[in-house]
Formats: sequence, C-alpha cells, structure tokens
Amino acid sequence: MPNDTIPLGRYLWTRIAQLGITKIFGVPGDFNLTLLDHIYPVPNLSWVGNTNELNAAYAADGYARVKQGAGCVVTTHGVGELSALNAIAGAMTEQIKVIHVVGQTSRRMQSERMMIHHSVGFGPDHGVFSKASREFRVAAAELQSEEGAAEEIDRVLRECFVKSGPVYIFVPIDLVDRQVPAKALETPLDLEPGFDQTTVDEAAKAVLDAIYASKSPGLFVDCLVNRRNATAEARELVDKLGILTYTSNMGKGIIDETNPNYLGLYNGLASAPGVESAFETHDVVLTLGNLPSDTNSGGFTRKVAPEKGIYINTDDVQIFNGKNSFSHTPIKYVLTSILKQLDPSHLPKTSKPTLPDPDLEDDHDSKLITQSWIWTYLAQNFFRPHDVIFGETGTAAFGIPDVTFPENVDWFTQTYYGSIGYATPAAFGAEMALVELDGKGERERGRTLLITGDGSIMLTIQEVGNMIKQNLSPIILLINNAGYTIERVIHGAHQSYNDIVPFDYSHMLPFFNMSPSEAKKNFHRCETKEQLEEVLKLESVRSPKGVQVVEIVMDKLDVPWRLSTQVGTRGPEAVKEMKEAGFKVREMKKHEAFWY
Amino acid sequence: MPNDTIPLGRYLWTRIAQLGITKIFGVPGDFNLTLLDHIYPVPNLSWVGNTNELNAAYAADGYARVKQGAGCVVTTHGVGELSALNAIAGAMTEQIKVIHVVGQTSRRMQSERMMIHHSVGFGPDHGVFSKASREFRVAAAELQSEEGAAEEIDRVLRECFVKSGPVYIFVPIDLVDRQVPAKALETPLDLEPGFDQTTVDEAAKAVLDAIYASKSPGLFVDCLVNRRNATAEARELVDKLGILTYTSNMGKGIIDETNPNYLGLYNGLASAPGVESAFETHDVVLTLGNLPSDTNSGGFTRKVAPEKGIYINTDDVQIFNGKNSFSHTPIKYVLTSILKQLDPSHLPKTSKPTLPDPDLEDDHDSKLITQSWIWTYLAQNFFRPHDVIFGETGTAAFGIPDVTFPENVDWFTQTYYGSIGYATPAAFGAEMALVELDGKGERERGRTLLITGDGSIMLTIQEVGNMIKQNLSPIILLINNAGYTIERVIHGAHQSYNDIVPFDYSHMLPFFNMSPSEAKKNFHRCETKEQLEEVLKLESVRSPKGVQVVEIVMDKLDVPWRLSTQVGTRGPEAVKEMKEAGFKVREMKKHEAFWY
Repeated sequence: MPNDTIPLGRYLWTRIAQLGITKIFGVPGDFNLTLLDHIYPVPNLSWVGNTNELNAAYAADGYARVKQGAGCVVTTHGVGELSALNAIAGAMTEQIKVIHVVGQTSRRMQSERMMIHHSVGFGPDHGVFSKASREFRVAAAELQSEEGAAEEIDRVLRECFVKSGPVYIFVPIDLVDRQVPAKALETPLDLEPGFDQTTVDEAAKAVLDAIYASKSPGLFVDCLVNRRNATAEARELVDKLGILTYTSNMGKGIIDETNPNYLGLYNGLASAPGVESAFETHDVVLTLGNLPSDTNSGGFTRKVAPEKGIYINTDDVQIFNGKNSFSHTPIKYVLTSILKQLDPSHLPKTSKPTLPDPDLEDDHDSKLITQSWIWTYLAQNFFRPHDVIFGETGTAAFGIPDVTFPENVDWFTQTYYGSIGYATPAAFGAEMALVELDGKGERERGRTLLITGDGSIMLTIQEVGNMIKQNLSPIILLINNAGYTIERVIHGAHQSYNDIVPFDYSHMLPFFNMSPSEAKKNFHRCETKEQLEEVLKLESVRSPKGVQVVEIVMDKLDVPWRLSTQVGTRGPEAVKEMKEAGFKVREMKKHEAFWY
Repeated sequence: MPNDTIPLGRYLWTRIAQLGITKIFGVPGDFNLTLLDHIYPVPNLSWVGNTNELNAAYAADGYARVKQGAGCVVTTHGVGELSALNAIAGAMTEQIKVIHVVGQTSRRMQSERMMIHHSVGFGPDHGVFSKASREFRVAAAELQSEEGAAEEIDRVLRECFVKSGPVYIFVPIDLVDRQVPAKALETPLDLEPGFDQTTVDEAAKAVLDAIYASKSPGLFVDCLVNRRNATAEARELVDKLGILTYTSNMGKGIIDETNPNYLGLYNGLASAPGVESAFETHDVVLTLGNLPSDTNSGGFTRKVAPEKGIYINTDDVQIFNGKNSFSHTPIKYVLTSILKQLDPSHLPKTSKPTLPDPDLEDDHDSKLITQSWIWTYLAQNFFRPHDVIFGETGTAAFGIPDVTFPENVDWFTQTYYGSIGYATPAAFGAEMALVELDGKGERERGRTLLITGDGSIMLTIQEVGNMIKQNLSPIILLINNAGYTIERVIHGAHQSYNDIVPFDYSHMLPFFNMSPSEAKKNFHRCETKEQLEEVLKLESVRSPKGVQVVEIVMDKLDVPWRLSTQVGTRGPEAVKEMKEAGFKVREMKKHEAFWY
C-alpha cells in the first residue's frame, strides 16, 4: 500500500496547509531547499519568498493577524534562523501564531560536529541556534529521527494554537525525504485547548454574579481577546451586557467603535478628556484579555483598584484580588459560557456620559500637515469599513488611538514589543492574507493601509519590492518627519543620533521595479493639508490597483499629544526635557512616574 | 578633586576610543539614547547611525577587519539586540572583534520584571535577550552596579582582543550617569594575551626542528593569521623559509601573491590545475591559522596526512598528530620566536614547479560576460594595490580565488559563516575605516570594492544609502544574474524559490538620495564584455568620487568552475543534479563525498 507513508517534508506541509495556511514566507538556503520542494505538490499551498529573513518572519506575523490564525516562515540553519529571531520574539510577546520551520544540517553533521558553513567555531555545536530561540517560542520539535516525527510536528502545531505563540520545527536535511506514516493526516489536528466545562461554567457564573451585584460596572477589552480568537464572543458580550465599554491602544478595533456602548480608548493619564473620569465611576471593571505593558497602559497609569477588578485572562479568571479565581479556563470558552448564562434582567442599569469635545490644539489652523489634524482627517475621510490598518511604532501608534474607526476595521500595531520596521513587512503579509480571504469569499476585500514613518520604513524597506512583485495594492502613508521623532520626544531631540539616512521616496517604486509610468501615478508627496486632501480624494488612491505611496511631510518636532503625555508618565524629568526641547506637552492633572 | 570620577557612560566610550575605534555604529533606541550622549564629548569618537541593527553589526565587522582591530555597535534592549544577533554570530565564527554595547532597561525594571516595551510576555525576565547571545560572544559584562563596572568593562574589552571575537557590554539605563573612578583611564588596556616565553620558544624550536628534518616542506597560510594580528610575521616567515607557500579561500591576500614563494590557493579537489599535485609532494606541511570549514577546504578535501602536519593554531601548536604539542602559545609570538631562532642554513632546498595553464573554458570566446572571464579580467585590469575587496558569499567568493592579486590587497569574505547580505554593510564599515586610516596616514587610501549579487544585496541594500550620506566612494560591482545562483547550483536550479524580488538598479542611487545628475554618472549597466571593459576604463569609476555602481548582467546558470567543483565534493548525487540542471561541471579525478 504505497500511500501508507509519505515523505516527512510532504507530511509537514500537508499539515500546515490543513491549518488554513496557503502562503509560506521565507528565504531559501541550502539546508532548506529540498524541504521547500515539498511545498509545490501540496494543494492550496505556495511559496512566497521574501527579501530577507527578518522581513519574512514579520510578514508571517502580519499574515497570521489578518487570518486570525497562523503564519509560517522558513529559514535555513543558523544565518537565516538568527536573522528572523527578532521578529519571532515579537510574535512571542504579542502572542502571534508563527510557525518557524528551519532546514538544518544533517544528523551526521550535527553528531560529528562538522565545520559546515553557517556553524560557529571549531567542533561546532550545531544546536546553538536552537538554544538562542528557546525563550522566544512556546514549543519546538527538534527532529532527530523519522520515528515519531509526525507526532512531534502535530504536537507543536497544536501548541502554536493552544498557547498562541511561535513554535519551531527543526528538520535536519537528511530527514526531509524519509518516509513517515501518512495515516494521521486523515484527521485534522485538534487546535482547541483542553478545558473542563464545569470549571469554565463556574468561572463564568462567578463573573456574572459579581457584575449582577455591582452598581456601575464597566468593560475593558484588550488585545489578547483577538489573539485567542474570542473577538466574536467579546463583541456579543458588549451588546448583551450593555455597559460602558473601553479599549486600549492595542485592543482598538476589536469592538466596533460605532457600538453605542463603546465610550472610548482608556489609556490612564494619556486618555482623551472625560474618559478617565468616566472609567473611575465604575465600582467593578471587567477586563478581557489584558496586556498591561507600559505602552498599552499609559505608562502603568491605567489602573483598577484590586477590589474592583475582574479579569478574564487568556487562560484564567481572577475576581477581586484573588477572592475567587479559576485556572485552565480559556477565554473563548469563558465568554461563551457567560453569553449562555447571562440573564439581562439581573444587570444593573447604567447610563452613558457625554464626553467633552477634544481639546483644540493651538496649531489647528495650520496649513501644514500636523499631528493634531491628520489622524482624525484620515479616519473621517479615508478609512473604510473592512480596512486593515498597520500602525508602526512611531507617531502613528499614538495618533490613531484618538480617532473613531468605521465598523469592522482591523488595527494592528506592535505596541508592546515595539520593534520599528515591523509594520512594513507585516503589512505585506497582511495584504497577502486579504487577497486570499477575499478570493475564498471569507472576508470583504478591504484595503491594507500601512501607516509608517521615514525612520521605521528604512529598516525593512526592501519588502516594498515584494508588494510590487506579488501585484498587491497596499496604501503606504509614509510620514516623512526627518528622523526618529518618537525618539526625539523621549531624549536627544536635536542630537545627530536621531537623524536618519534620507531617502528620496519618489524613486522608491521604480527602484523596486514598478514601471516608471505607473510609479509616477502611484506616488504622491504632500506638504500641506490641502495637497493631502486632494490626494486622498483620488480614486486611484482610494481604490488602489497597485502599491500606492503617499509621502506626508511633517515637522520633526510635531508629535501626537498622546505620545508626549505617554512619555510624560515617565516622570517630571521627562516632562521638563520635552518642554526644553520644544515639544508641546499637556499639563497633567496628577503626576505619576515609573521611569526613574 | 572633580576629575577623580567620571560618568560610567563616559568611561565606556573613553576606553573604546583608547582601543583605536573612532566610529560607533548602531541604531538609537530609548534605552541607549542617554548612553549615546556620552559619545559626543570623547575626542576622536563619533556616532555613525545605520539603517538597521543587522547592518550596523555587519558594518562594525567590516570596520574591524580593515582596521585590524575592533569595531563597535550599539543597540537598544531586546529589539535592537536581537536584530543584530546574526551578524554577531558571524563575527564569532569568523573571529572578528566586535564590541556590542546594549542600552538596557533600568535595574528596577529588571528586578521588578516590569512589562516595559520590548520585553517578552508577562512578568518578563529582561535577561532573555542576553541569554540568546550567550553562545555568540567570547565575554560579556552584565553591569548591575557602578561598583566594579569599570573593571568589568576593562575585562571584556581585553577579552575581545585576546580571544578575538565579539563581546557584549550591557548597560542598564540608570547606570549611564553614575560616577565611576576615572583613574584607570590613565593606563591604556593591555590587549595582548598572556604567555610564557619559554613555552613559546620551545614550540617554535620544535616547529623549526621538524622543518629542518624534512625534505620538501610546504607552508599553508589561512585566515586566522589575520584575526590574530600575525600577518606581518607570516609574511616575513614566507620570505625567510623560502618554501612553497599556499593559501585558502579565506586566507587569500594575507601573503602577497607576487611573492616568489607563493604557489597558489589550495582548496583540495577544488584547486587550480597543478596545485594539488604540488601540495602532495610535501613530506611536511606547516599550517598557520587553520580554519578548515567545508567552504574553506574544498568540502574537507584539503587534507594533510596526520604524520606530516604541523599546525600553528591561534593558541596552540600541534606537531605530527600529537607527537609534540604546546598550549597557551599565541600564534603571533610563536611566529616571532620562529623568526628569531630560524637558521636558514638548516632549511632543506626546495624548488618551485611550473603550474600548467588554467583550463580553457568552452565559453571563452563569448561576447557576454561570463564567470570564466570576469574575475581574471578584473584582477588584471581593475584591481590595484591597497584595494580592499569584499566578496559576497555567492559566485564572487568562488570566482576571486582563481585570480592573482596585486600586492597589498585585502580580501574579505564571510566564507565560513556564509550569511548572504553581509558584504554590503561590511563594505560600508570598511570604507569608513579606509577614510579614517588614510586621514591618519596609517594606510594607503586604496578603494573599497564590493563584489556582490542581486540575491545578496537585496537583504541589506538600505546601507547603500549610508554610503551616500557619509560621502563615501566604494565601487559596487553588482552581478545581476536573476536570483540566487549559488543556490541554483546546489539544488532547485529552476524552482521559483531561487527567484528573487527584482530591483531596477538604475534607480538605486537617486532613491538613496544621490542627486539624479550625479547618480546618472555613477551608475553603469553592462551586458557584454565590451561594455564592461569600457566602463572599467573610466577614470570616474577607477578613482571614484562618490558611490559607483556597475551592474553586471550574467546568465543565471553560469557559475565559476570552483563553485560547481566545490558543490561536487558533496558527492556523486550532487554532480548528477548539477549536470541535469544544465550546469557545467568538471570531471573530478577522484571522488569524495561528505554530504550524504
């Protein structure tokens, strides 16, 4: 029976295709070439090369976010593996499902410690690279035999989903064509976490009881809801609870901002007027999928008094500072159980305050493009339902939280890990996913909007070439503010280290092989509000066919108020330094400081 | 006495400047900004930003190679640190002195495991990044107090030189401005390895006695001679021994190839005609600074019978398979002692064979640019004394070994580590070093020649922008052969994974901000030998003012004979596959195989 077995490489890719992955990102290298051969015969799976390994892993991350599933990146032993590591660590901390497949040296080379290229030193331990990624993965299969290899692959692919984070699969080159049993492929992998329904129901009931007993509960929805595939349940909960709902910098977009229960983005001291005082009226706050990093909590000033807090975390539930707690309770199932048990008649009646108008900035009448103007303008005049927006760790990540999205907008930033350069290749991966989902009829096409800056795009800019090669149509809104503005506001506003290598973006698209005539149509440079308004009205930009680049010139010392306020949470020294450097900083009513 | 102490940051940079380093590569980030401030007041030290951290670390590597000293790269906690890691691992395996300074989170953030951006997960261990680099450094200072910090810095800077490899210095942000004693700065660091002169003299004598007793000794000079600063001693030894001398792919350039004792590059089966048979006539082979990786030994076919071999390794001496051995004997001092003890009258008389002409390739009369033609053409018509040539891991690294260099040419490849993308930023760092050394009158200006390909330059291409920003004048010889040709010859010649994202290089220089008129003059595209000959005659290319780019179009299945022969050492299956794919492969007289 010839179909009883299958080459190990084919087994791996078949399993990966079964996860819903259709595109494999990565860079070839001589220890993965034969493994890559096995991609081609697998139905609905294809190879997408990248311009380097860091970009490839970022692309897999962006693809995973849009797919609400996993992405896959392949590298070669050592050199490729390490080049991708920073992106993998980002996926780890942001809980993104990335499968990193590494084509390794052969088992003989490993056991005899042969000095094969890409190794380190004399009598090299070929395992040093795997050691380097140990802290940045939720599981790893270090295959050393075809015996049990299929089970190991299955185990780590499951872990990728259950723990929501990166996994590694190391395939020595001499194992690629070894035969393994094919039988298991008939049964798709179980990707759901194990749990005890009784415990989950008890946790859900305890949460509900606490809310029923409260007078003015609030709901805070954070980003890990998205990572654990619980967005639909969270949205339904917002509707059914009917209580004031908030989100975070990273959670933005999970709850439709047109929902009447949604009040705004609560980021501690760095929140829009009225939001903090509304938040403080709650006697109980139910938090879903919390990720309280400094950058996602207004520098740790988003606080809930312990005796008021209910947390439905990814895998446990904590009620009132340990008064009640449950473990092994996956958030998706706790929310499902809450929705099932919820009796609306027991809920307290609450009312929604009217927020004051945002503060009018002193540069509101500038003809130049300002941080105080651009984000709301974009949201009100350019964003559309079903858009996928990637905001780079820069002014975009702190400007966008001010705006109200149309419904069904996906917003992705890497606000906890904060590795600049991330957003460009991630947007490439995202746009690949959008095309795929649209083709399958699984999601409205939407558009990929990459909002980045000159300082960040520089790091990973070659992936723009891949957008062109793959016939994609992202819209790149590129803020050119002459350097690392996000760093200038932190320290050294006028130091040369915050300057960058300048690029002339008018040559970017032709350099990356777009025909000069098309490139000319697809590139726009705007120095004034009026120019930007005109460009954003163009149908060719609004409904792009091909990569669009809008270069947006802004002052290098202009930052969103939210960014300077966030930096201000570091302490009075930070405020003083910003003011001395020439930044506008809002006076904060109270001071906290975590930095010094 | 106010000068008794100095801020820790200032201490660090002062020490680094004392090592002869004048340029600091890196990328700013909020945990290193205040540390970077201390660079500016240090005399003869300046900040050079890079376009990303991987490129920065490669640049420090290239700078170190040309300076015959150390390079320095600064990154920020986590994100920057990991992005640079692949380049650091390359420096580790190639024994390049790179000082990696990391601006870390504060000690309180670390001890309280605060969720500061760039960290990993909940209750994050801020030390996970340092763990990741543990296998890729020869020493690390993980500073946690100003007490003893100066001594720790001094210790690892010394280790960088003594062990010749990368070191890490981790500086928590709250320590940057702490005062440390300044006294130690009055005494420059001792960078020489400790050794016992008697042992060294005994080792040298034992080596000499073995050579005196031989009939036809040969000398093999490999790259670690360069890493341990023993090039001058090795050159003198070649002159004084007067015996046949060989080098390796990576050692090329250490010995002047115009030296009458130099026979050629010996790379086992993958050697030019006559070299292997000459090498096999020796009854004793003295090897200096051996680095026997697959790629530097003709796939392990460069062999010396154990009973014939004398090895002066970096830190030990091995004579005739353990018959005599010495440890803690730094190569530089062993060579010095040999030169002192050497009595030419005891040396056997040897003669130099005449090598046959190289094989005439069947495409020798092609009008198109071929691998069989270009390398010798470049060497005979374009290379000059004092040039620094960086050959990327691609066809360049296997084509150049065929040629004879003019005197005093430095040749650098990353042939053991073999991370594509390396050569471009390394050439940037090298050119920075050349300008500096020329300015000090310490070295002829020479030119930096970067020989790379379309597949490799893609990975790190943004650093070309920095060459322009820094007003440098490297000559980039860019082989455009439509993809990863070095991988095509290994496997999957016609598979899509060996295709790349195509760039239109005519737009590269203006994209990276060279004025269009200058860019037009500085870019040349050549499809025929005649065109390339004309371009390489231009004075503007030969003696460049500003970055020069020569795009050289070649067939995607054309490889140097040495590369296909090297791949052929993997075994008969590899030869068969190359032939079937359409590559020319020389018949080897004997077969060995290490791959299968």
